[in-house]
Order: sequence, then C-alpha cells, then structure tokens
Amino acid sequence: MNRLLPPLALIAGLACAIPASAQFQKSEDAIKYRQGAFRVMAEHFGRIGAMANGRVPFDAKVAQENMALVVALHKLPFSAFAEGTDKGAPQRARPEVWKDGAKFKAAIERMMSEVAKLDAAAKGGSLDAVKSAFGATGGACKACHDDFRARDYSSN
Amino acid sequence: MNRLLPPLALIAGLACAIPASAQFQKSEDAIKYRQGAFRVMAEHFGRIGAMANGRVPFDAKVAQENMALVVALHKLPFSAFAEGTDKGAPQRARPEVWKDGAKFKAAIERMMSEVAKLDAAAKGGSLDAVKSAFGATGGACKACHDDFRARDYSSN
Repeated sequence: MNRLLPPLALIAGLACAIPASAQFQKSEDAIKYRQGAFRVMAEHFGRIGAMANGRVPFDAKVAQENMALVVALHKLPFSAFAEGTDKGAPQRARPEVWKDGAKFKAAIERMMSEVAKLDAAAKGGSLDAVKSAFGATGGACKACHDDFRARDYSSN
Repeated sequence: MNRLLPPLALIAGLACAIPASAQFQKSEDAIKYRQGAFRVMAEHFGRIGAMANGRVPFDAKVAQENMALVVALHKLPFSAFAEGTDKGAPQRARPEVWKDGAKFKAAIERMMSEVAKLDAAAKGGSLDAVKSAFGATGGACKACHDDFRARDYSSN
C-alpha cells in the first residue's frame, strides 16, 4: 500500500506523542483528518475561552471536560502533515509547513507545552489560572496560524 | 446568543454521555464539528479494522491506542444534530435524523453499546475478540448510515 509517512523531523520529535500507525493511504484522507481534528479541538478550546473571557459562567467541571478533549485531540493533526499532503483537497496549510519543518515543529511544540499548562490550570479549578493559560495557549495557536495557515483555502 | 440546542429526545437519552455546553452558535459550526468528529473517529476505527481484517499485523497496544480515541470521540457528533442543523453546510445527514428521532436515538445507542464491547475486547488483547466486536460495531455504524446518511452531499 502506498502509505504517506510523516516527515522525519516530525517523526523524530513527536514519535512518542502520536499513536502508532499514524498513516494515511491518500493525501485527501490526511488533509480531511487533520482538518477534522482541528475543528473539533477548536470547538472545545473555544468553550473554555468562553469561560475565560466571561461570556459564560466559569464551571470547573465543564472546563475540565472540554480540556480533556483538547488534550486527546491536540497532537493528532500533526500526524497528518506528511510530505505530499500539500495537495489532495482544499486546505489552508501553507507551503512553509513542508519548507520549514524545523520552525513548524517548534511552533507545534510550543502549542503542546501551553496545552499542558492549560490542562493543569483547568484541573486546578482556578479561573484566574485558566484565563492566563488560555491566553498563552491561544497565542501559541495564533503564532502558528500566522506563519503556516493561509487566509483562503487552496483549490485542490 | 442564538445557540442551537440538541433535540429533547437526544438530551434525555444522552445528557450524561455528552460534555456540558454542547452548544453551537451557527448551524454550519455544528455540521462541520460532527463531520470532523466522524472523520477522525472513522480513521482510528479503520486502523483497528485493518488489524481485525488482517491487512496489518495485530498489535494490542496500537489497537488500544486507537480504541481510546474512538471512545473519546464516538459520542461527540450526536451533540451536534440540533434542530435546524439540517441546513447550513453541505452534509449527508438525511431528514429522517430529525423526523424519526426515536429511531435515530436507538441507532446511536446500539453503536455506543458496540463501541463499549469493542473497547473491552481491545483492552483484553485477544485478536479473535477484537475481530468479533469490530464486526458488530461496524454493523451498527452501517445500519445507522443506511437509514440516516445520504449517498451524496446536500448543496447547502
């Protein structure tokens, strides 16, 4: 089978963090998988943000439930940026993902580190700690998006 | 905020199974969320299937890792079938999802029951048990798809 394997730089850095058999048979499968994982993660991250930003009342249990899903999902997309998956379905990933793998890897690691801190804050149950860690995590998301995500979808 | 709430039948049956604040601000958000969750779940379910069907060697640890993700994801899509989400983005959900809520709920509950059995089988580490439970779970998926999923995407 013609399986798509992640770039070596990602394998080296993230091998222990991503389930084995992180392989896709078609580029389209990998693209839709990572988009799906990002979408679900963003929803649950956003629900924590609604509490951090005061749009809905803070509920520590709800924050923890949503954070558990963010933790379960946040490494998954990065198993699906194999070489060759810059084409295959409309997407917003910029060529820099593959051209500057070291910078992309650093951005992912920053996000993972902030997610771990936000998880600890949510488990601690302090709204102030969640607010602070949410801001830092959102900053890590945005920094990666600024460098590696285009405004518009590609045509294929 | 104009939040979309799940149908009462789903709330009654699944309230304890779905994270609180399972609310979406736009129909499009709910549709893309459930599609994303289905996509990621299907990928990990499929990796167990590859082992169950002998396409790749059975590895109990890998089966358990993939099954943990299926378990984490399998209830999520059903928090996102609120009334009104039959429109808003291209989708394959049939009108029967909302017209025959009781049947849809029964199909979901069958799937959830089979997923629990497959999870137990994966944790037990027996390929024969995984094969059997995988077949039953796939059958539950297919039965629901046959009744509630269209072949083609809607235009909006």
